[in-house]
Amino acid sequence: MFARYDMAKDVIAVLEEYTGRIQYKRYTVPGIKDLPVASKILLNQRGCDLVIALGMPGPKAYDKVSAKTASEGLMQVQLTTEKHILEVFIHEDEGLEDDTYLKEIMQDRARSHAQNAVYLLLDPQKLTDMAGQGIRQGYPDARPVY
Amino acid sequence: MFARYDMAKDVIAVLEEYTGRIQYKRYTVPGIKDLPVASKILLNQRGCDLVIALGMPGPKAYDKVSAKTASEGLMQVQLTTEKHILEVFIHEDEGLEDDTYLKEIMQDRARSHAQNAVYLLLDPQKLTDMAGQGIRQGYPDARPVY
Amino acid sequence: MFARYDMAKDVIAVLEEYTGRIQYKRYTVPGIKDLPVASKILLNQRGCDLVIALGMPGPKAYDKVSAKTASEGLMQVQLTTEKHILEVFIHEDEGLEDDTYLKEIMQDRARSHAQNAVYLLLDPQKLTDMAGQGIRQGYPDARPVY
Amino acid sequence: MFARYDMAKDVIAVLEEYTGRIQYKRYTVPGIKDLPVASKILLNQRGCDLVIALGMPGPKAYDKVSAKTASEGLMQVQLTTEKHILEVFIHEDEGLEDDTYLKEIMQDRARSHAQNAVYLLLDPQKLTDMAGQGIRQGYPDARPVY
Amino acid sequence: MFARYDMAKDVIAVLEEYTGRIQYKRYTVPGIKDLPVASKILLNQRGCDLVIALGMPGPKAYDKVSAKTASEGLMQVQLTTEKHILEVFIHEDEGLEDDTYLKEIMQDRARSHAQNAVYLLLDPQKLTDMAGQGIRQGYPDARPVY
Repeated sequence: MFARYDMAKDVIAVLEEYTGRIQYKRYTVPGIKDLPVASKILLNQRGCDLVIALGMPGPKAYDKVSAKTASEGLMQVQLTTEKHILEVFIHEDEGLEDDTYLKEIMQDRARSHAQNAVYLLLDPQKLTDMAGQGIRQGYPDARPVY
Repeated sequence: MFARYDMAKDVIAVLEEYTGRIQYKRYTVPGIKDLPVASKILLNQRGCDLVIALGMPGPKAYDKVSAKTASEGLMQVQLTTEKHILEVFIHEDEGLEDDTYLKEIMQDRARSHAQNAVYLLLDPQKLTDMAGQGIRQGYPDARPVY
Repeated sequence: MFARYDMAKDVIAVLEEYTGRIQYKRYTVPGIKDLPVASKILLNQRGCDLVIALGMPGPKAYDKVSAKTASEGLMQVQLTTEKHILEVFIHEDEGLEDDTYLKEIMQDRARSHAQNAVYLLLDPQKLTDMAGQGIRQGYPDARPVY
Repeated sequence: MFARYDMAKDVIAVLEEYTGRIQYKRYTVPGIKDLPVASKILLNQRGCDLVIALGMPGPKAYDKVSAKTASEGLMQVQLTTEKHILEVFIHEDEGLEDDTYLKEIMQDRARSHAQNAVYLLLDPQKLTDMAGQGIRQGYPDARPVY
Repeated sequence: MFARYDMAKDVIAVLEEYTGRIQYKRYTVPGIKDLPVASKILLNQRGCDLVIALGMPGPKAYDKVSAKTASEGLMQVQLTTEKHILEVFIHEDEGLEDDTYLKEIMQDRARSHAQNAVYLLLDPQKLTDMAGQGIRQGYPDARPVY
């Protein structure tokens, strides 16, 4: 979608570290509500095993509703294809008045999700090892409860 | 639907610039919640490859709920047909007290979405080239993050 | 459903003007959330081509949620049957403290939707001719934007 | 579910008045969100024609969301099985601070829905005869509009 | 998911009391919205009969929306597989400022749901015997209505 920063480049940077083990395709759509059908086409028609859906919903109430509808669609696509879609939505109003900080958040979150995608595909045990540690994408991690 | 301005005429004006490459059908319904089944009929029974769904939800809380339900339906249709539907909803209360401005917004948004529809069908790379630029339909564009 | 006024009689009055061209069946259910499955049975098992779903949700928050769930169900039925359902819900709290006015609204809305149902079945071009005129059911029409 | 009063006993009392014409099965689940799949199993695998889903959602915001999700699930089950499910949810905060009154409400609503279930199965015309009279379950009836 | 405490260990502790009668698999995902497709894979592809879905949604409005979307997905999976999924979500803001108390809640709720899972699989009559007693997981029980 026409977000203000092209997170796809960060995702691609991570995926290219796994050249030979992971291939990728890029499908750009006009808005976040167009992501689910694009994901379905990638998973069902174009041989993909996982989708990373990148979007930047706007700040208005209507944009929040659109993001919810998009999420519901991405959920449905996962359930009918039985393949994972990792949703990476950066909300424009995540307290992000500072462009430099916004860009850092977007980069970090895009890269973390891309890394999780790689684990789901190539090394799922890695995710179990990380469970219960309060690790988050693009935010300070929460502390674990001992 | 019985909106106050017939956006379909603007959509048709764009599509007619592509005569010979794109054909279109028009299907008018009484209300926005009738759009999803009409879209399904166009995509599943009448040979269409993409739908542009035009609607103008009213200003009341109930109208917002109807718009959400319509959106959810349009999402479902896309996922079962694996074809894009571009939703163009103009909310009557988008700060649009001025009829002249309202008409301009509606025209601009209808035409932009029609242009995106053409790109999705004929030149999808064009959308990738535009990614990350903060371009929006019917609003001043957001500025990109450098 | 057990609404305070039986809108079905007004719908039937309109449909009977088309005797010979339109046949109808009536299916009464206890509550609005029972409408979707009844509609599915009419469209899928009993040979109907269109349903007019009449309901009068109550005024409480919980009733609003029920109305939304019912709407979502009616949407799903339309999409799986590829047939129209016209939803005619009169909310008890539509500023309608006056019983005489309430009855007029209910009659007008039931009849308008019945007329639209007839157009969808027999004369869909009629709806296109009416597009962009801001015509509404059971309210003063919105004025068109010139 | 583990509600504070076992409404199933009232439902069973009504159904036993129709011994020989109606048979029933009971399926208890831990929480309201477990009702939809239990209903699907009863309708799809165990030969039932209708389900009465009894639940008592808690008073918190999260409980309201759970009740909505449960309702949506019950709706989906109805649409795929094309059989009725009557949802009988008593919200703990329906202004019911008085246990005696709460119990009366629960009994009345459980019995009314059980009676409606019987009508749907054995005598659907009865429901049409009652339409437009403003009859409600577990509340004073609304008055009809003349 | 990367919650702050690994509830899966408590679930496993309960399940291991039934060694020989119950087998289990663990599937860790990055976030709560990834739970539904993982559940579908476990139920549809990997021979499981029931899923216990453990998650700890964050405290923000957006996290609440994600939890709702995840719940809706878990509901859909149950309905298409006709198998139970017990959802165990601990909301970070359940009035739980005290880590010791939070851990107790999480342990208690995880174990109670695991026990219910066992009853659903091995001894469903046990759940009927407990109905109407106001028993809750991870909270003081509500008192029954006599």
